[in-house]
Amino acid sequence: MTETVVSSARREVVIGFERPFVIIGERINPTGRKVLAEEMAADDFSRVEADARIQVQAGAHMLDVNAGIPLADEPALLARAVKLVQSVTDVPLSIDSSIVAALEAGLEVYEGKALVNSVTGEEERLESVLPLVKKHGAAVVAISNDETGISENPDVRFAVARKIVERAADHGIPHADIVVDPLVMPIGAINHAGRQVMHILRRLREELEVNSTCGASNISFGLPNRNGINSTFLSMAITAGMTSAITNPMHGDIVQTCLAADVMMGQDRDCRRWIARYREPPVPGSEGERGRRTSGRRRRRG
Amino acid sequence: MTETVVSSARREVVIGFERPFVIIGERINPTGRKVLAEEMAADDFSRVEADARIQVQAGAHMLDVNAGIPLADEPALLARAVKLVQSVTDVPLSIDSSIVAALEAGLEVYEGKALVNSVTGEEERLESVLPLVKKHGAAVVAISNDETGISENPDVRFAVARKIVERAADHGIPHADIVVDPLVMPIGAINHAGRQVMHILRRLREELEVNSTCGASNISFGLPNRNGINSTFLSMAITAGMTSAITNPMHGDIVQTCLAADVMMGQDRDCRRWIARYREPPVPGSEGERGRRTSGRRRRRG
Repeated sequence: MTETVVSSARREVVIGFERPFVIIGERINPTGRKVLAEEMAADDFSRVEADARIQVQAGAHMLDVNAGIPLADEPALLARAVKLVQSVTDVPLSIDSSIVAALEAGLEVYEGKALVNSVTGEEERLESVLPLVKKHGAAVVAISNDETGISENPDVRFAVARKIVERAADHGIPHADIVVDPLVMPIGAINHAGRQVMHILRRLREELEVNSTCGASNISFGLPNRNGINSTFLSMAITAGMTSAITNPMHGDIVQTCLAADVMMGQDRDCRRWIARYREPPVPGSEGERGRRTSGRRRRRG
Repeated sequence: MTETVVSSARREVVIGFERPFVIIGERINPTGRKVLAEEMAADDFSRVEADARIQVQAGAHMLDVNAGIPLADEPALLARAVKLVQSVTDVPLSIDSSIVAALEAGLEVYEGKALVNSVTGEEERLESVLPLVKKHGAAVVAISNDETGISENPDVRFAVARKIVERAADHGIPHADIVVDPLVMPIGAINHAGRQVMHILRRLREELEVNSTCGASNISFGLPNRNGINSTFLSMAITAGMTSAITNPMHGDIVQTCLAADVMMGQDRDCRRWIARYREPPVPGSEGERGRRTSGRRRRRG
């Protein structure tokens, strides 16, 4: 029963096999968001702040923070964004960059135990990111590609994940602090991408016994009604063993699907969270309403 | 690779491990539908006809037909309903009754290879329903309860399913003609009902190698936002191996979820059915529209 514990100064979140599914909000990322990129480069972080608040309100348990803007001082921007987001929400963060110096700058200012996003199976990444993860006592997302690229063979991707877990152990990082991203391909291009991912997810859980995550929106790239594909993908991947996802909690039925999956997996005791969120408001003057006014309902639930 | 072939006079539907998921429309059932029951008892089948058409239009691949009305002549009503539904749609039917004489009357008038709904593991049911299934060359839904009721232990329910499959073989009915219903409990009452069902579904597929179905709406009984639970349940059960469901194609996202699950399981080649259903209509005068007018799009897809 593997548990990856991450935290902010005031809150702990556990990603785990016997835990509710963890939604990591993806919005704070200037890639493909021109206005946000321009604002951040011009030192305007108001949208970052708003995106932090609104994603948590929608149901994100953690937030991914990325400041990847071409030609900008990414380490400084990422540190700034991490500090700001930590000042307006208390959810743990995933510090997201492909630049090691930016990860380092983010970790320097981070309060708590962060999730570093990410390391790959590439030799140079392993030897630069893993020492940083160890130094800061962080957890890390392990992406299952290496120098040869992304294999179409799911067992090769699994082998890359295994290599990262083993190398992390050499650096003193326990497997519970590795969250593997098996890499989700667009199913419009690769028809067996869904089965592939579910196959890797099962092996990650049963053989490597590690937690998992993914960029969940990628599956529907190029297709119409992306939300329909994304939410079905999420519930199917959760069935196969996925324990978290980097996704957009503002989109369609993403949060509803994750809460329903918690119910189905037995991770929402007595369906309390589901009922609290979706219970219809009682009609004024009805029995239910009177019951609530006198706290009868709460007492009956114990 | 088990395939259950059912048919009407003009159309064949295959329930199978490597096939698109089969939606069996549940609406033609007077249980809990007072108006429909009164109408059918008074020989007014207009609503049956409308429900047949509208469910097929919504995406049902088969229809369940039930005429269980207390004190009515169920065999005559069921035969009447079966004939009528076969006259207005060409999807194969599931002939649904707890009364053997009604199943027999329905089978007598049915054109094609029907799905008989259902037999249980009860001795008396096995010995009355299975000969009928064999005589008419039908397929049959096997419900995993017996004289002792419905076990809370999923392995006991699995053992009942195995018994039915074995007994059917004694009657000359191949396992490919058995579609097991593992019985879905309301998850609001039994928190591990979801995991239970997924456990049985995996065993049905891997060990008994039989197709499966269920009354999918039961899972959300008593909970708010039932559609949210139902559609997530369906996609998770499909991941675990379920190959059909008796459900309401008019409700919420049921059909969308099943089509998305087909995409995810690699059962919608090049996502053609998904794209055909959800592609946004082209803007008049746009390139897409011109392309369609000249059939360019179809040609490009080859």
